[in-house]
Amino acid sequence: MSSHHIVRDDQEPALIIANGAACNPELLGQLLEWSPLVIVLDSAIERVIELGIKIDVLLGDFDRGFDPEIYRTSQYPIEIVQTPDQNKTDLEKAFDYLIDRKIPAVNVVWATGKRADHTITNLTNIVRYRDLLKIVILDDHSKIFLLPNKFEKWYTAKTPISLIPIGIVNGINSDNLEYPLENDTLTIGYRTGSSNAVAKDGIVSITHTDGDLLMMECMD
Amino acid sequence: MSSHHIVRDDQEPALIIANGAACNPELLGQLLEWSPLVIVLDSAIERVIELGIKIDVLLGDFDRGFDPEIYRTSQYPIEIVQTPDQNKTDLEKAFDYLIDRKIPAVNVVWATGKRADHTITNLTNIVRYRDLLKIVILDDHSKIFLLPNKFEKWYTAKTPISLIPIGIVNGINSDNLEYPLENDTLTIGYRTGSSNAVAKDGIVSITHTDGDLLMMECMD
Repeated sequence: MSSHHIVRDDQEPALIIANGAACNPELLGQLLEWSPLVIVLDSAIERVIELGIKIDVLLGDFDRGFDPEIYRTSQYPIEIVQTPDQNKTDLEKAFDYLIDRKIPAVNVVWATGKRADHTITNLTNIVRYRDLLKIVILDDHSKIFLLPNKFEKWYTAKTPISLIPIGIVNGINSDNLEYPLENDTLTIGYRTGSSNAVAKDGIVSITHTDGDLLMMECMD
Repeated sequence: MSSHHIVRDDQEPALIIANGAACNPELLGQLLEWSPLVIVLDSAIERVIELGIKIDVLLGDFDRGFDPEIYRTSQYPIEIVQTPDQNKTDLEKAFDYLIDRKIPAVNVVWATGKRADHTITNLTNIVRYRDLLKIVILDDHSKIFLLPNKFEKWYTAKTPISLIPIGIVNGINSDNLEYPLENDTLTIGYRTGSSNAVAKDGIVSITHTDGDLLMMECMD
């Protein structure tokens, strides 16, 4: 039985709280309503504890004189996972942890803002988990996920949609977007599909033949 | 004569204030000390005016019911540039404006934070201005610019340095980095050079043969 007194089936998305800018407490509250498995990255726990959130897993390399052991009693039965691999970010290690536990999906908050290198790395590195883990990154203005080769979803008219290629993406076709794509190629830095929008209430369809295409649903 | 009562030679970097998250006023103050040409993008002017900053150019498509004319008197002699092209972002249009005026360099603030699609587009689109304009994007945690094929600069030991490839970058060699690169290839989303650092006080050298490599000097 989990510390939330709810038996989890590990099919619900887990929640990773990373170490970037904090999001609106309301967004965090919505994600916590489903009693997800909560993983906090490294010293972010100092900020998370203040919010009164019960943490299931604390994960990081703890390499900056940070002592995770002090949370063992207050957050009992917290699992502390030390991951010293310097070739991966803490966020990637948390994804690997979830894959090992066969948890199929995760929402990620606090992964953007603050350092731009962390933001761009966190956003773009999700593409390598394509068949391993369903990842959604959320912040106060954005919802980001990797598109499958064929994507369909119902949206209301004028919903802003940005398509960001991580590298080169070929053979892109869209239906029901304001600026339609027809057998298009998008290339990061040179031609991206930022600031598109849904044309009318209904199903939006986006397909592509190869490459990694991020969907960003963003609002001012 | 400019409104700052300083004769500019247009060789100093201009300053673009974009429409993302505001930076620390201290950073903005440092950049304004040199009395740069100040360009503000679209409705960001509403937030900039509150800071008491004299604006030289207001640029945007002004397509959301925003009336730029109300600033013509209070910011006299402001130049108002309406740029309706939907295929470019306001930031790209501001770069084009500076290139037209033969201004060789620009610092950009407020280009990150808030919407993730705007942040990633602003950061990555600077690569297409390689030979046209020297661009530096700054926020409270980051300084970002495109590396020339051969880059050398003096840094103190342990300065964090992240190398982010916009696409694929080949033939990368480094000198004086903690994790050295030797004829390396970096690929966005798959293998990036994030979270490296300067090994010891002295010149850092980074060379690459082809591709677009961003330097990010970031701090927590």
